[in-house]
Amino acid sequence: MDGAVTRNAGLSVLAIGAHPDDIELGCGGALLAHVAAGDRVTMLVVTGGENGPGDGARHREQERAAQMIGARLVWGGLRDCEVSPDAATVRVIEQVIESTRADLVYVHAPEDSHQDHRAVAAATLGAARRLSRVLHYQSPSTLTFTPTVYVDVTAYLSGKVAALSAHASQVEMSAMVEPDAVVASARHWGSQARIGYAEAFQPTRLVLDLAPVSGLGTAQVAASWQLTPAVFA
Amino acid sequence: MDGAVTRNAGLSVLAIGAHPDDIELGCGGALLAHVAAGDRVTMLVVTGGENGPGDGARHREQERAAQMIGARLVWGGLRDCEVSPDAATVRVIEQVIESTRADLVYVHAPEDSHQDHRAVAAATLGAARRLSRVLHYQSPSTLTFTPTVYVDVTAYLSGKVAALSAHASQVEMSAMVEPDAVVASARHWGSQARIGYAEAFQPTRLVLDLAPVSGLGTAQVAASWQLTPAVFA
Amino acid sequence: MDGAVTRNAGLSVLAIGAHPDDIELGCGGALLAHVAAGDRVTMLVVTGGENGPGDGARHREQERAAQMIGARLVWGGLRDCEVSPDAATVRVIEQVIESTRADLVYVHAPEDSHQDHRAVAAATLGAARRLSRVLHYQSPSTLTFTPTVYVDVTAYLSGKVAALSAHASQVEMSAMVEPDAVVASARHWGSQARIGYAEAFQPTRLVLDLAPVSGLGTAQVAASWQLTPAVFA
Amino acid sequence: MDGAVTRNAGLSVLAIGAHPDDIELGCGGALLAHVAAGDRVTMLVVTGGENGPGDGARHREQERAAQMIGARLVWGGLRDCEVSPDAATVRVIEQVIESTRADLVYVHAPEDSHQDHRAVAAATLGAARRLSRVLHYQSPSTLTFTPTVYVDVTAYLSGKVAALSAHASQVEMSAMVEPDAVVASARHWGSQARIGYAEAFQPTRLVLDLAPVSGLGTAQVAASWQLTPAVFA
Amino acid sequence: MDGAVTRNAGLSVLAIGAHPDDIELGCGGALLAHVAAGDRVTMLVVTGGENGPGDGARHREQERAAQMIGARLVWGGLRDCEVSPDAATVRVIEQVIESTRADLVYVHAPEDSHQDHRAVAAATLGAARRLSRVLHYQSPSTLTFTPTVYVDVTAYLSGKVAALSAHASQVEMSAMVEPDAVVASARHWGSQARIGYAEAFQPTRLVLDLAPVSGLGTAQVAASWQLTPAVFA
Amino acid sequence: MDGAVTRNAGLSVLAIGAHPDDIELGCGGALLAHVAAGDRVTMLVVTGGENGPGDGARHREQERAAQMIGARLVWGGLRDCEVSPDAATVRVIEQVIESTRADLVYVHAPEDSHQDHRAVAAATLGAARRLSRVLHYQSPSTLTFTPTVYVDVTAYLSGKVAALSAHASQVEMSAMVEPDAVVASARHWGSQARIGYAEAFQPTRLVLDLAPVSGLGTAQVAASWQLTPAVFA
Repeated sequence: MDGAVTRNAGLSVLAIGAHPDDIELGCGGALLAHVAAGDRVTMLVVTGGENGPGDGARHREQERAAQMIGARLVWGGLRDCEVSPDAATVRVIEQVIESTRADLVYVHAPEDSHQDHRAVAAATLGAARRLSRVLHYQSPSTLTFTPTVYVDVTAYLSGKVAALSAHASQVEMSAMVEPDAVVASARHWGSQARIGYAEAFQPTRLVLDLAPVSGLGTAQVAASWQLTPAVFA
Repeated sequence: MDGAVTRNAGLSVLAIGAHPDDIELGCGGALLAHVAAGDRVTMLVVTGGENGPGDGARHREQERAAQMIGARLVWGGLRDCEVSPDAATVRVIEQVIESTRADLVYVHAPEDSHQDHRAVAAATLGAARRLSRVLHYQSPSTLTFTPTVYVDVTAYLSGKVAALSAHASQVEMSAMVEPDAVVASARHWGSQARIGYAEAFQPTRLVLDLAPVSGLGTAQVAASWQLTPAVFA
Repeated sequence: MDGAVTRNAGLSVLAIGAHPDDIELGCGGALLAHVAAGDRVTMLVVTGGENGPGDGARHREQERAAQMIGARLVWGGLRDCEVSPDAATVRVIEQVIESTRADLVYVHAPEDSHQDHRAVAAATLGAARRLSRVLHYQSPSTLTFTPTVYVDVTAYLSGKVAALSAHASQVEMSAMVEPDAVVASARHWGSQARIGYAEAFQPTRLVLDLAPVSGLGTAQVAASWQLTPAVFA
Repeated sequence: MDGAVTRNAGLSVLAIGAHPDDIELGCGGALLAHVAAGDRVTMLVVTGGENGPGDGARHREQERAAQMIGARLVWGGLRDCEVSPDAATVRVIEQVIESTRADLVYVHAPEDSHQDHRAVAAATLGAARRLSRVLHYQSPSTLTFTPTVYVDVTAYLSGKVAALSAHASQVEMSAMVEPDAVVASARHWGSQARIGYAEAFQPTRLVLDLAPVSGLGTAQVAASWQLTPAVFA
Repeated sequence: MDGAVTRNAGLSVLAIGAHPDDIELGCGGALLAHVAAGDRVTMLVVTGGENGPGDGARHREQERAAQMIGARLVWGGLRDCEVSPDAATVRVIEQVIESTRADLVYVHAPEDSHQDHRAVAAATLGAARRLSRVLHYQSPSTLTFTPTVYVDVTAYLSGKVAALSAHASQVEMSAMVEPDAVVASARHWGSQARIGYAEAFQPTRLVLDLAPVSGLGTAQVAASWQLTPAVFA
Repeated sequence: MDGAVTRNAGLSVLAIGAHPDDIELGCGGALLAHVAAGDRVTMLVVTGGENGPGDGARHREQERAAQMIGARLVWGGLRDCEVSPDAATVRVIEQVIESTRADLVYVHAPEDSHQDHRAVAAATLGAARRLSRVLHYQSPSTLTFTPTVYVDVTAYLSGKVAALSAHASQVEMSAMVEPDAVVASARHWGSQARIGYAEAFQPTRLVLDLAPVSGLGTAQVAASWQLTPAVFA
């Protein structure tokens, strides 16, 4: 194979999670791959994870993890366990999509047993309604998940686990974050993808740009096929 | 957007269809985009479309269409309406996958009311069992189809329709090939993808290579995470 | 309610089943309703049910059941347990669709544990590829079935059970045909449909003609919206 | 075909949308067909679309569009972007179902990236829990949509587009309403339905009344099959 | 068959419903079977069904029904038609899961047209996030339901109907509770399960313990396969 | 937890696979758990895996693996890569179901890219049409797989891997059998099931017998609820 199906230089990638460590668990390896490829990566953590240790530990942990990944960190400012998929949450996410001019968004899968995860997934789908690339990652609390898109994280698994280990307060305390299961799932999905280790994604939509042609609207299509009804012309 | 999610230079792309014109209808625009991006494109037409005009017209039409796309044409040699998803058909497809060293395969969607389409989709999934990228396209006879991956074909729609028009015997005779529906579907899927005109694909699996790191197997992972049980070591 | 969502006078209805009694079990009540509404109903029984009693009993039973329903009976001539979804089976069904000029087809659901049922469903979808109305019924051997369309058979349940009882050899011998389950399922689906007793159907596609406007093709649409590309014009 | 699968004279049809123009986009053609067939059509617009131009423009536009369709217009009185699928919203919709004695309801598809659309779909399913006919239409923001029921709108496409053009403030301002995509989708779904132009619907449930028999409850069934347990008799 | 796939002695079973009578309708037969098998059964009724008769009738009815089943009754204390799947509701359910040390939870199916049912299903999935056995039952208002797990209630159908009849105020007043449909559905699902009468369940997850080996964690696995990354060791 | 949801003493368990090693990969751990619980386990290997080493190696390997599991081995006698889901294959499987009086069947998942796997799954569903317990396991070539039922194999993972290692010719030669992926998938599914290591299953149907009540038919139900229509009585 002389080339690659995908390339990304200068892409703006936005990863969104409800709580500290959600993003690293779901797509930390893919983010490391994006950084390695020269993309700009932003992490939007919607709540402060207030239900964990209260002394700011989780904020500092998240900042360290973002540094390890090479991503810019943005806080959404909502409160842990109180996220609702309403217009206000949509607006919080919309503003980060706009300010980062995001080309690609990673977010929780829609079917999840944690109400904040569901709310963030739903609000992101609203905020990203005009974006052509939205991929959903799996969390330990995700319910039905049928991925079809994968990123090879063989080279980034060490980095992913290291970033996760920055969330010491969470990993030690939570029955839901099991480091060995993180490695095992990466190998499981890698096997499904016919590669080594992988992160798995369920796309809402994903436009592949196969050639360096961009910025084309419908105007380029021959006039005889233009579908705009006369009443609007 | 400074870059693009995907790039392909020198990729080997293999498009597989049961009959002449199936490939152009399903992914002709994407193939034109691949050619424009410098990829090598092969079209494998599994049968000769013997149930159409009997004087070799469909062979010549298919050859002309492949030329218009800039693809190499391979005939599978099976007979129209007699394709079975058995080991022999798997082997026919396997040989083309091997000889082209295909990186990416396009093929019919699995749920289709035409028995040849179903058979080609099933046999391709068997033949491509070790490939990391298999995308399914829609035919007029496709039943349930829930695409999540799209290719922008705004710049290639004229070319796609021109390639289709090379299949004059088929387009004139068939109630299933409606040129205006081809344009309308491209706009419909483009709207779903938040772009202009698109072709839509349902992935069995699609590995995105985000960075120019390749050829990594499981060996690169730290030894302490190697999962190979001792009895196999 | 002054009117009804649906009416049918002179509709040509074609019900297709793999074996004697399949059609009565799956949609016998709906067929009685069609007859009561003035439609012409044809039953195509694809095989003779040769694995049952060998003395022609099943043929005579099927003929009597068709009479009780008021339907014309056509035999497909294939053999029990040997139906394959190939071009020959498609052609058998196609011919009956053509000769009856069928407007609406009822047939087995695609996911069924009996190979003949699966084959008849698949071949019918091929044969009916240009029809706008194909509804799938449930058999005792059907696997996943998620109906969304229902017919009220409260007035026809007696008639359905009577037609089933014409298949005496089968009902007595088979562990799969349980008359009480037939009544119970009708009530179960009736409850789902918010009526009394119902038969349930899974549509492949169902066009509702709301108004007595027919025979319109794309030509009636304003020329400025015609989508036919110039190369075909 | 001498008749039609469906007829409607005097049917009460209720179309429900979250904002001005949602109904026209989703099922404007079907509503025109209902009116042509002699049905009474009511449009319930749940919010005033307050996030658009603030001077009442959207109310006047919606009133003009309803007039063009020949439908009665009812406002739900909720506020744009603040709809919740709670008991109050259910009650708003329930009252219109009751006052119109609706036989058939059209509403947003349940999986939609706009929170108001999701809320209106969910609340309608609650309010219509005893109705036998609920069909979901597609909006530009709809996510997964797998329609199986279609209405032929070839004769009504001009009227649909004209009604949409009444919403001038919205069409000009919104990136989500693309008139050419409306036409293209109608042709795309028409092709799926094997007709010209169509609107596509996903049914929650749809009872077809094949014969002019109505008002039958379970009482008509032979007493020996009555399933009511003795403890309730 | 000398044994049985499943046994339960001393299991703690928790059934959760939004309103009085929801549990009996959904899994009353299975609960009777659990009691007969020696399990401890708890019923958590999340609201008091305040929208029914206001004089405490529904509380007394529910208490009597629980007695008839042999279950302990717990009230969740939330209000009818006002349940939200938020952190507070999750906590209510979590506390009962903890206090009963539940091994198995029965709850509403997630797709339901009643907002309280949806909310209770969602909150239960959050509260039971660490439990290995969560089964969803069907209500009259449930939408898509594709059960794969069944309990034989042939011996308990009388008891189930008797417990339902304890809810006299509800059964008489509600158009949604139809006793004959309860019996019919049990027979319908029994037929699907290849037994007599059954209750049907859709599992979120169900761990089968085939052998009397319990309490094993990952520690028992040979050290060479331990997957815990070194950074966490 | 004092008891267990499931028990099996003297159950007859039948595991069916297309080729040598398919069963061990898919449900080897569960079979070991069945043996430990005192069940009788039979393995039906439908073909001899003739496309592997030709000197009988695969037969001897399979015999050794069955011995390690403690199961009786039955050969189906069909040829590798030539299995068809026809009446003959159904009969082969039916005979083993009958001779073993199987209570529970494990078999390939229906959606698989290997034609033999698909054929064995389909034929088993036909042969087991009257059985109440059919569970599908995952193979490396399985496509869509959404398990909901799990067996804890933490105590049996060593045994499973040892049985797999008996298939030395296959493991060494095949790119599809990756021992480390076997362990990783067990941990991945264990995490989904909220236990240590698990095998995952997709049920076609699974009846749970909660209490030692058996052999009840519909006769036990009160006569007034018997649904058998009079015409059959």
